[in-house]
Amino acid sequence: MCMHDEATVHYIDMIDQTTLGHRFIKEEFNVTPRIGWQIDPFGHSAVQAYLLGAEVGFDSLFFARIDYQDRAKRKNEKSLEVIWRGSKSLGSSAQIFTGAFPEHYDPPSNFYFEVNDDSTDSPIVQDDINLFDYNVPQRINEFVAAAVSQANVTRTNHIMWTMGTDFKYQYAHTWFRQMDKFLHYVNQDGRVNALYSTPSIYTDAKHATKESWPIKTDDYFPYADHEHAYWTGYFTSRPALKGYVRMMSAYYLAARQLEFFKGRNKSGPNTDSLADALAVVQHHDAVSGTEKQHVANDYAKQISIGYKEAEDVVAASLVGVANLTSKTGWSLQNKFQQCPLLNISYCPPSEVDLSNGKNLVIVVYNPLGWRREDVVRIPVINENVAVWDSSGREVESQLLPLLDVSVEVRKYHVKAYLGKSPKTTPSYWLAFSATVPPLGFSTYIVSSSKRADATSVRQECKSENRKTDTIKVGSGKLKLIYSGNQGKLTQYINSKSLVKESVQQSYSYYRGNNGNQTVKPQASGAYIFRTNGTHPIKSEDKATFTVLRGPLLDEVHQRINSWIYQITRVYKGKEHVEVEFMVGPIPIDDGIGKEIVTQIATTLKNKKTFYTDSNGRDFIERIRNYRKDWDLQVNEPIAGNYYPINLGIYIKDNSTELSVLVDRSVGGSSIRDGQLELMLHRRLLHDDSRGVGEALNETVCISKKCTGLTVLGKYYLKIDPIGEGAKWRRSFGQEIYSPLLLAFTEQDGHDWTKLHVPTFHGMDPSYNFPENVAIITLQELEDGKALFRLAHLYEVGEDKDLSVMASVELKNVFPNKKIKKITETSLSANQERTEMERKRLVWKVSEEEEPKVVRGGPVDPAKLVVNLAPMEIRTFVIDFSY
Amino acid sequence: MCMHDEATVHYIDMIDQTTLGHRFIKEEFNVTPRIGWQIDPFGHSAVQAYLLGAEVGFDSLFFARIDYQDRAKRKNEKSLEVIWRGSKSLGSSAQIFTGAFPEHYDPPSNFYFEVNDDSTDSPIVQDDINLFDYNVPQRINEFVAAAVSQANVTRTNHIMWTMGTDFKYQYAHTWFRQMDKFLHYVNQDGRVNALYSTPSIYTDAKHATKESWPIKTDDYFPYADHEHAYWTGYFTSRPALKGYVRMMSAYYLAARQLEFFKGRNKSGPNTDSLADALAVVQHHDAVSGTEKQHVANDYAKQISIGYKEAEDVVAASLVGVANLTSKTGWSLQNKFQQCPLLNISYCPPSEVDLSNGKNLVIVVYNPLGWRREDVVRIPVINENVAVWDSSGREVESQLLPLLDVSVEVRKYHVKAYLGKSPKTTPSYWLAFSATVPPLGFSTYIVSSSKRADATSVRQECKSENRKTDTIKVGSGKLKLIYSGNQGKLTQYINSKSLVKESVQQSYSYYRGNNGNQTVKPQASGAYIFRTNGTHPIKSEDKATFTVLRGPLLDEVHQRINSWIYQITRVYKGKEHVEVEFMVGPIPIDDGIGKEIVTQIATTLKNKKTFYTDSNGRDFIERIRNYRKDWDLQVNEPIAGNYYPINLGIYIKDNSTELSVLVDRSVGGSSIRDGQLELMLHRRLLHDDSRGVGEALNETVCISKKCTGLTVLGKYYLKIDPIGEGAKWRRSFGQEIYSPLLLAFTEQDGHDWTKLHVPTFHGMDPSYNFPENVAIITLQELEDGKALFRLAHLYEVGEDKDLSVMASVELKNVFPNKKIKKITETSLSANQERTEMERKRLVWKVSEEEEPKVVRGGPVDPAKLVVNLAPMEIRTFVIDFSY
Repeated sequence: MCMHDEATVHYIDMIDQTTLGHRFIKEEFNVTPRIGWQIDPFGHSAVQAYLLGAEVGFDSLFFARIDYQDRAKRKNEKSLEVIWRGSKSLGSSAQIFTGAFPEHYDPPSNFYFEVNDDSTDSPIVQDDINLFDYNVPQRINEFVAAAVSQANVTRTNHIMWTMGTDFKYQYAHTWFRQMDKFLHYVNQDGRVNALYSTPSIYTDAKHATKESWPIKTDDYFPYADHEHAYWTGYFTSRPALKGYVRMMSAYYLAARQLEFFKGRNKSGPNTDSLADALAVVQHHDAVSGTEKQHVANDYAKQISIGYKEAEDVVAASLVGVANLTSKTGWSLQNKFQQCPLLNISYCPPSEVDLSNGKNLVIVVYNPLGWRREDVVRIPVINENVAVWDSSGREVESQLLPLLDVSVEVRKYHVKAYLGKSPKTTPSYWLAFSATVPPLGFSTYIVSSSKRADATSVRQECKSENRKTDTIKVGSGKLKLIYSGNQGKLTQYINSKSLVKESVQQSYSYYRGNNGNQTVKPQASGAYIFRTNGTHPIKSEDKATFTVLRGPLLDEVHQRINSWIYQITRVYKGKEHVEVEFMVGPIPIDDGIGKEIVTQIATTLKNKKTFYTDSNGRDFIERIRNYRKDWDLQVNEPIAGNYYPINLGIYIKDNSTELSVLVDRSVGGSSIRDGQLELMLHRRLLHDDSRGVGEALNETVCISKKCTGLTVLGKYYLKIDPIGEGAKWRRSFGQEIYSPLLLAFTEQDGHDWTKLHVPTFHGMDPSYNFPENVAIITLQELEDGKALFRLAHLYEVGEDKDLSVMASVELKNVFPNKKIKKITETSLSANQERTEMERKRLVWKVSEEEEPKVVRGGPVDPAKLVVNLAPMEIRTFVIDFSY
Repeated sequence: MCMHDEATVHYIDMIDQTTLGHRFIKEEFNVTPRIGWQIDPFGHSAVQAYLLGAEVGFDSLFFARIDYQDRAKRKNEKSLEVIWRGSKSLGSSAQIFTGAFPEHYDPPSNFYFEVNDDSTDSPIVQDDINLFDYNVPQRINEFVAAAVSQANVTRTNHIMWTMGTDFKYQYAHTWFRQMDKFLHYVNQDGRVNALYSTPSIYTDAKHATKESWPIKTDDYFPYADHEHAYWTGYFTSRPALKGYVRMMSAYYLAARQLEFFKGRNKSGPNTDSLADALAVVQHHDAVSGTEKQHVANDYAKQISIGYKEAEDVVAASLVGVANLTSKTGWSLQNKFQQCPLLNISYCPPSEVDLSNGKNLVIVVYNPLGWRREDVVRIPVINENVAVWDSSGREVESQLLPLLDVSVEVRKYHVKAYLGKSPKTTPSYWLAFSATVPPLGFSTYIVSSSKRADATSVRQECKSENRKTDTIKVGSGKLKLIYSGNQGKLTQYINSKSLVKESVQQSYSYYRGNNGNQTVKPQASGAYIFRTNGTHPIKSEDKATFTVLRGPLLDEVHQRINSWIYQITRVYKGKEHVEVEFMVGPIPIDDGIGKEIVTQIATTLKNKKTFYTDSNGRDFIERIRNYRKDWDLQVNEPIAGNYYPINLGIYIKDNSTELSVLVDRSVGGSSIRDGQLELMLHRRLLHDDSRGVGEALNETVCISKKCTGLTVLGKYYLKIDPIGEGAKWRRSFGQEIYSPLLLAFTEQDGHDWTKLHVPTFHGMDPSYNFPENVAIITLQELEDGKALFRLAHLYEVGEDKDLSVMASVELKNVFPNKKIKKITETSLSANQERTEMERKRLVWKVSEEEEPKVVRGGPVDPAKLVVNLAPMEIRTFVIDFSY
């Protein structure tokens, strides 16, 4: 467990790591924590307050970092301490008492007693009256003055001092010796009463006063600690690490499901190492991208080690679930292989020569509760290959050439990461359409076959070659129109929804501020985004614009400049656009750090308003150059309007919604009306003086030769009629989070599908989850019980059909198991839900109560139906009888 | 007790503070230390080795700082460890095994584990094999390599690592945790054997090898840590503090004698506070002048507090010894007053109006063992005053006008130090000749009396007023000849010894190096003397040259420049010259630090050779630009020839000796043949980067207004026929160390001398000490016993009459007490001498043995005669029966 970040983390990861920690504390110490202690994260999220606060049974939440303007106003109004209602949907049922400290999280400035640290002027309490530095009266006066000063900005008579800070208590004695003396003499003095306290004691003291507290809604983003220091750079910092964390987080979710199906292995590999590594990397100086380079390297290494073990769990589980060992001599030696480097076109098990009659078996697992159709793509070396499903029917497939740029990226990074060069070079991507049952898998066979459509149809358009006025891309309901002469996206047309919207997409970079100001110098760095000006990136004149067309999808390839490459995909069966970008190495030979953004511009009249998710869950309204809680003084018109994005960002006007979903945590905004932008990558040359002590200048090295880091990623774009965007954002958003899991093996001679279970159904084969519910945890605990967590994916009022109470029938979810006992718990599964609700402190608020919130009721042990209200997440520990 | 300095301390102070510490350790822990641990002092003295080493019963002495050239040669020859014979006179009877560390006193460079200190590259021992920084094999290899490297410059198989350094072990655990691991794994490895050790264990291991060791004589001065870093500045740094320490050290010696005569006061004031303060100020960053200013201030304050208490002891003792309370109603209320600020002409008890019939009583105490005649001087406000002895005879006296410059100095410093301005301003110094018995006092009465010779005869010689060719000064055997037109000393003539030598005396300053070199930068600072050039100080043309003549002495007053004033005194009854100088405030408005020296130039052909004392005791031969122990590479021809002086410096040729004695620790040299120089004061503007972190820029402040510190001091000069200088240097040198102690009271009406004991004899009135022995300690211990320490003042062969065995008859020293038991002890009085000699380790040396050393034999309890061989110091604890 760690003090996780609140901007760049996904709520599922927050829940997983908190569960790990809370259950450890419960088991090891029999303690159930009551207080959230997020003192360091750089801004605070609604999800932290209501989900990881109220829903884990906390009575209060404390932290230090809120916007300096906000803090000034709150000190003035004594509203640093509030009742925070983070969720519109759950309202007062998930509110929490929350305190922001008046001055960061240090002790008052001259009460600081670290060993070997003379950086503050904190005289010790000299109480030997024979010594010339005897200072008890002065020190006590200073103590009382500091206490009174804080009391003046605080409601009630109770204040809290945080006696410590980063890296302190290397030798606790130097602190306690002084604090002991202060307590003794201050209490002897009697003007204030001082005691060693805890946040729990403080919370109870505040509660006992029966004071009324102001209400706070939404969140505390973005965070600025002075006029030019907006901590919005870290929303994007280390995008490759952020992408890796998200990918592994999804893998961990799926791997636990497969581990559950197979049964937890008491002695062999399990998913615990991956759980530990993923928990730690949620730290506010980990996935945030604000750690030193060698620390980032270690985080990635730990995840990779955890992944390797989980990979064995998944392979063994697939073997077991497919009932392989009983039907054939096929052993675990010849186990399933997987391809964690598929993003850089590297997948050794698929890069095999199939011309000699070998068949490639691909198992495709779907961790979601609903049936799913998706296009799977794998690199192959043969041109003449085809795909069959497990019933022997050929499946539609499409070959796309592997580009030179991809081959280069693959070659370089395989060498850099694995220390060896790939043996072969695949020539194609083989794409095929897979259909997979919920919580189950399908099996596909790839084998040699002469095919008519050797590869996708290729259409190249050099800009000097202006033969057509427009180029139309997409063979399904969605079409994108490009200008032929410039190769630029101009229009988005959906023939089903009848949306027709002019769209432009471009890249720019912000020049990272180098901090050489004489007044309030501030560089852009790992934490802070501070631009020194915008530089649009024009596509190079001679840049090629290539369209690849085929039966499953069309791809538009654009080399934006020498270090940005982009592929835009329109799938025949989908109504959104998929954009894959490859950014880097960002050049720095001009001595200028760069922060790369992509902009999508439309004609939507969104009136400065846009929406970003809170940790991938609730969407929060953002208004450019405006804060609801105070009268904003705008000093950084770009950086000050950036917000963290984990799921997506959207804008709307009276008729239309433009939504963009992301594959990892990024920063984004709407800087002009009709426009959205995402920051994709950052390479900077100066430290921003917030502790990391390094410039954010990521490189990838082979031996000692390093080049700037290239980032590959995707985002997804959809334009809908007003009111219809949520469905895609929520349900497809969950599919982005949980992609299909692929495992490969070879079939030599035998007919695989006859000897194995080709299609696996984890649930009753006839059962499908409702579209508004996801299984976010299904895990066998160490004691053999199951941890089961369901999330309603929609907010109140978000979708006319899906923002309603949803039901999940557990008898269908676990058709072959008998539920002996089901216990609803707190979100972190460390206490019973009823007990948690019973103990919860009730706070007075200074505003009118809102209407009663509706939530799903208790689960009837006979019916075993779980009801979930919008945005509700319910956690159960299930005891099965076998 | 502290790790005392070895250059700027007097041997009597070294003995006193070591005795304090050793007796404390004995009483508190019943431990007798065996090892000298002088790891930090900046060079090492012969007296430390033989007196404070061998003579306190140590078996070895260790330290870090020796000249970098010396160290290089010793490493090469494996002669860092030697048998040191520090005394020519005591030879092998006072030798000690001594080790200089091969690289300062830190651990090897990457074995350094202080909490919160990342300044060295010292990885912890990571022995968790599951962690990526597991490094046991590497760290063990590094450990072995460091050990072997040191073994290669060390005789025998044993080496010592000093696991710590300045300010370390703030949290000992961080060190011990790593050392524990090293010991475990290194011994497991087996190539070397490592253990937690102590210097005693190490010494015993070295001794057990029966190795032969090289002989070292003389001392390790001066110390340089690189070509341009000679630590010879601190010989003079903070000359006022050095002067204060010396003055108080003498006062402490006398005060303990008086405390002994009166009997130690169990509950009232005693001399312990002064003892403690004087002990601590002997530290190598205290009297050395190398502490920060506020620390120096505290040292002075502690001494002053100790003095105040000792002043009460002295006053009460004089009251008791003079048998005052029994003869009169004179009570302790009206006690003796003393004048610690007499050096700045401030003495309130003597500055009283005697015209109304009041008499001033002056008690003059002589702490030496021989009868003494000296000229006493006190400030008075009346012109018509005369002095009578206790038998009613008028004593010869002389009035000297108090100069404007003295009045200014007095006014400024009384205000600065006491916070108040003097009430009166005396007009004159009244000088009179006092005769005082050994270990006793005489009483003198000053009262109103019309005198013929109102004041000294004044002769002013402006330089424009060239009426005479020469001016002769001195009315006794010694005459100084000045050139009339320039006012410069030209000749020294002694009509008794027939010495006639041309002499010049001048002032110069060295420009303190500011450390702005690009290669090996090094500033002159508190520790280091590095000059950037010499600047002769020419007397200003219009400067006056005034001679005051009278019956007791002649004074020559010279204003050298606006910030140097000098008075040269020739006493009718003495054959030496006394020079009082007043230097400061040294101007720094030109941005140049200055180091002020005075030079005395003669025609002596001393062939680069001069002699300086070791801590006021043995004289050591110094040869310019030469070291006996190695082939000197000369990089700093001034600073590299400076040596510490506590007693004096002399040069000689075939016919003549020129000796200069000092009143405090100073640095000095003979930079040209025939010449001697003393550094009197230093004011610098840069830190020399050796730890003090401040420039040596002393000021004196009234409120917030500060001016550069002015230093007042004296030195004494004598020219003798060859072979006759030692007598003056030794016997008069002891008088400089122990001046007469003055105490004042008023006689109103009664005839003081009739009602009191006017002359006190501490010893049998007929007994006088031989001229070659001093009582350096006479003190009542807490248990009622007496600590009694005698020092032979002469070296072997130094004087034809006095470098012989001397005898002291204790029955005459303690005529009224019966000695029940007398025990000779080690020098520090923590063990019996016989026991100490019995335990002493005997070492093999690689050179021929010298002839047997003669020392005084055991004291016969019946005869009670103590014999002392040259340079011998003998310490006794005496139990009296009362």
